[in-house]
Amino acid sequence: MTDVVGLSDKFALFDEQWSPKIIAQVNGNDVRLAKLEGEFVWHSHADSDEMFLVVKGAFVIRLRDRQLALGEGEIAVIPRGVEHKPEAATEAQVLVVVQSEVVNTGDTGGERTAEAEWI
Amino acid sequence: MTDVVGLSDKFALFDEQWSPKIIAQVNGNDVRLAKLEGEFVWHSHADSDEMFLVVKGAFVIRLRDRQLALGEGEIAVIPRGVEHKPEAATEAQVLVVVQSEVVNTGDTGGERTAEAEWI
Repeated sequence: MTDVVGLSDKFALFDEQWSPKIIAQVNGNDVRLAKLEGEFVWHSHADSDEMFLVVKGAFVIRLRDRQLALGEGEIAVIPRGVEHKPEAATEAQVLVVVQSEVVNTGDTGGERTAEAEWI
Repeated sequence: MTDVVGLSDKFALFDEQWSPKIIAQVNGNDVRLAKLEGEFVWHSHADSDEMFLVVKGAFVIRLRDRQLALGEGEIAVIPRGVEHKPEAATEAQVLVVVQSEVVNTGDTGGERTAEAEWI
């Protein structure tokens, strides 16, 4: 079913942080929405690049050698296999494009792993 | 190279309409920016879904049996093989995710075909 999806409508449907929700799929990738606040775990995805687009707020993606600071309307792509650690001082609303089978903690796993679900 | 890309900075770099510019790649897909105004041609992409996100303005995607009206912050995915025809009453700024080898006119071709280039 091809339909129009409003990002703000979808963000209004959940409060959970670090628990991505699927809103669409494109060429084997999920388009996911996530609310981020605080620190996440270091992880990487061996088989998937990951694109982040900040819809509201701002956050930082720490890499092992530097960090990327993203504000509203800015994107970054973390290539497959590259360790990264998202952090947000205050809540950020982020759109993520990543292969559909990928979980949020990548190859790290652990208690913060959340299977993405449709919203 | 992993870096932060600002959508408004990139939109400011070109005026051409219906001529998508590549700003990133993710899992074999291009992330492209396009300025749309007026009517485009009916076309489809046999081997690629296509995601549209309206960054500024609004536009309509005509399908053979109905139409999708997208405003700012709204997305839609046109599945591979589905004929569609974008139209914009006034200029819209749109982010597109589509497989990297796809041209804007898909299987239709013709004079409005524009190879996407990096910006």
